[in-house]
Amino acid sequence: MPILVMKFGGTSVANLDRIARVAKRVGVEVANGYDVIVIVSAMSGKTNELVGWVNETSKLYDAREYDAVVSSGENVTAGLMALRLQEMGIPARSWQGWQVPLLTSSAHGSARINEIPTDNINAKFGEGMRVAVVAGFQGISPEGRITTLGRGGSDTTAVAFAAAFGAERCDIYTDVDGVYTTDPRIESKARKLDKISFEEMLELASLGAKVLQTRSVELAMRYNVKLRVLSSFEDEMNDQAGTLVCAEDEIVENNVVAGVAYSRDEAKMTLVSVADRPGIAALIFGALSEAGVLVDMIVQNISEEGRTDMTFSCPTDQVARAEKAMEQAKSDGVLNFAEIIADTDVAKVSVVGIGMRSHTGVAAKMFQCLSQEGINIQVITTSEIKISVLIDRKYMELAVQALHDAFELDKAA
Amino acid sequence: MPILVMKFGGTSVANLDRIARVAKRVGVEVANGYDVIVIVSAMSGKTNELVGWVNETSKLYDAREYDAVVSSGENVTAGLMALRLQEMGIPARSWQGWQVPLLTSSAHGSARINEIPTDNINAKFGEGMRVAVVAGFQGISPEGRITTLGRGGSDTTAVAFAAAFGAERCDIYTDVDGVYTTDPRIESKARKLDKISFEEMLELASLGAKVLQTRSVELAMRYNVKLRVLSSFEDEMNDQAGTLVCAEDEIVENNVVAGVAYSRDEAKMTLVSVADRPGIAALIFGALSEAGVLVDMIVQNISEEGRTDMTFSCPTDQVARAEKAMEQAKSDGVLNFAEIIADTDVAKVSVVGIGMRSHTGVAAKMFQCLSQEGINIQVITTSEIKISVLIDRKYMELAVQALHDAFELDKAA
Repeated sequence: MPILVMKFGGTSVANLDRIARVAKRVGVEVANGYDVIVIVSAMSGKTNELVGWVNETSKLYDAREYDAVVSSGENVTAGLMALRLQEMGIPARSWQGWQVPLLTSSAHGSARINEIPTDNINAKFGEGMRVAVVAGFQGISPEGRITTLGRGGSDTTAVAFAAAFGAERCDIYTDVDGVYTTDPRIESKARKLDKISFEEMLELASLGAKVLQTRSVELAMRYNVKLRVLSSFEDEMNDQAGTLVCAEDEIVENNVVAGVAYSRDEAKMTLVSVADRPGIAALIFGALSEAGVLVDMIVQNISEEGRTDMTFSCPTDQVARAEKAMEQAKSDGVLNFAEIIADTDVAKVSVVGIGMRSHTGVAAKMFQCLSQEGINIQVITTSEIKISVLIDRKYMELAVQALHDAFELDKAA
Repeated sequence: MPILVMKFGGTSVANLDRIARVAKRVGVEVANGYDVIVIVSAMSGKTNELVGWVNETSKLYDAREYDAVVSSGENVTAGLMALRLQEMGIPARSWQGWQVPLLTSSAHGSARINEIPTDNINAKFGEGMRVAVVAGFQGISPEGRITTLGRGGSDTTAVAFAAAFGAERCDIYTDVDGVYTTDPRIESKARKLDKISFEEMLELASLGAKVLQTRSVELAMRYNVKLRVLSSFEDEMNDQAGTLVCAEDEIVENNVVAGVAYSRDEAKMTLVSVADRPGIAALIFGALSEAGVLVDMIVQNISEEGRTDMTFSCPTDQVARAEKAMEQAKSDGVLNFAEIIADTDVAKVSVVGIGMRSHTGVAAKMFQCLSQEGINIQVITTSEIKISVLIDRKYMELAVQALHDAFELDKAA
């Protein structure tokens, strides 16, 4: 029988009523003729409670024990979901990560999936089991310790299972009904997309649209797993619901720009008056990389008298770390600069679309639109399918709305 | 290094403060030179919450899923305890049942321990680990599913570890400070025993003294594991604290009677007018056994005209099951009786002591004492070291107090 993977997040399994509700949805797919692999998160709030206990017990905790504690929430949901399905007359059983086994690296707290042997679960499907309920977010290390995959790891678990089992599709049930052209809380005319390409979803996910975890989209793209994002809170859960994330060639018509993303979680840092000589950028960004700072945008200003200003952006919560790394390099004598200025009062706004590859003028249109609104652009970066600008934070909402309008995202292609 | 097993029940690890408190006690034993195996229960209330969810999800639940869900509480405590110990500078790690592995039968919900291989944990002790924190109550079946050992299973886990690792002693920390001559809530003169024999503890445990699980005492007796019961709530936790449960020959002086036990959880059932012929008892108790009824006391009344009354006792919550089994046997034509009378308004009171083996007159003294108080004895059973009587429930407290007095249990031998 064809295999379907269905993933339910924490709010979708928040209590016994919600579990019963989504179990019904699983039952529909079983009746449709699928063997189903269900990936479950912990009941909402449970993981945070466990994380709180770990932090309170030990400030610099042993990540192996963290994983052993924090993974327990998913096990509870998996067992309850299997029981609920059995109660409905559907042959089901639960699997914890180590039982599958979902083999991961030893990087506790953010382990990477190495392999998912399919023998155990396929053998049970062969014996008439119709649903394998798998505890998401967790696996087992080569040392036999429990690992977790990091925040949003259940999405990644789901996609990895879909790839390993050659599933027809991977349905991610969540508390929103799909992927939108932008955040509907900022732009009321935001439109749900029926389809979006992996590449676009990846840019949107990493730019702050919190629908899917970035790693899960990467994985889906690599193994060409059809992903569908849909709401478990909708009464109608038909085949057309949600947004399908798929390969570009499965999308017949699409707008040049698929969506507008934003992030408040970006700070602008400027190193004033550094020597403008070969190797200086490698030196600065090498030091930042070693300190674990995730640098996003980089701009080097025009040089004057052999000195220049270097501007870059990084996540807001890494500003202190970045400053420390730069001051250290200065006191070590490997780098010289007049001062370091951190500005956290900025936001990043981006337009994303694979249509940019074949359409020119997107950047010009974006800059013109922002200019008309009187919004000054501080830093620009582009990729093949994305243009991002750093602007004053107070203009963020205005910029998102103006760009959504300018690219007519409220209208389907 | 010598090995010590320390077990902490649910109230002893009820929250992070309590975990920190008992971790200190573990630290003292590590400083004393022991390698310690700590067995932990779930935080109090957690297991009941999980059991409640299972029952609400599925009335006739799959015991394999029940075990997968219910075992998660212990995993949380084990990880937190390991973290707390690490925070104190003590090399520690947690072990879930399947990681040890604690190998059990497939009898989910009440699995029996088959084997505890010591290699994994001993290897870590060899590498300098000082404390292995093990999630109690759980193991792994030959099929690779998680099993639980039934209520009080963490006591059994602790004793099994002590036996497997040849531990010097197994300390059971609980919310009472030892084993008493009777329940102090009923008899204020009840005295804490410094030592008690396995056989006596076994009788007291199975008679309703809820200090230790019966199976754990059986196991301790079979492998001659020294068990100590003591309170984790006392400030002073010295070597003389609590009650030592040990082999008879280690107790120099002891009273003829060690204690008085009672149970309200006993019902008296009478089959009126059954044929008094050979094989009738086998027929009745065979049918009850098949129905899973735990028959305790049995009395066959004097026969009149070839018919007799058969009286037996069983746990109160099995009355319906016993009645159904008897009515079934009647309608199947294998058994005939006039009526079946169930009386749940009874209580069982017992005196227990290995001294009975060598002292006569204990029974006579017991019956005389009850007679003096005007308490009618309905059923009597005896073992080598125990005499139990079934009486009207309203006299239970009076009987316990009178017997405690008559055998002078408030005075040490």
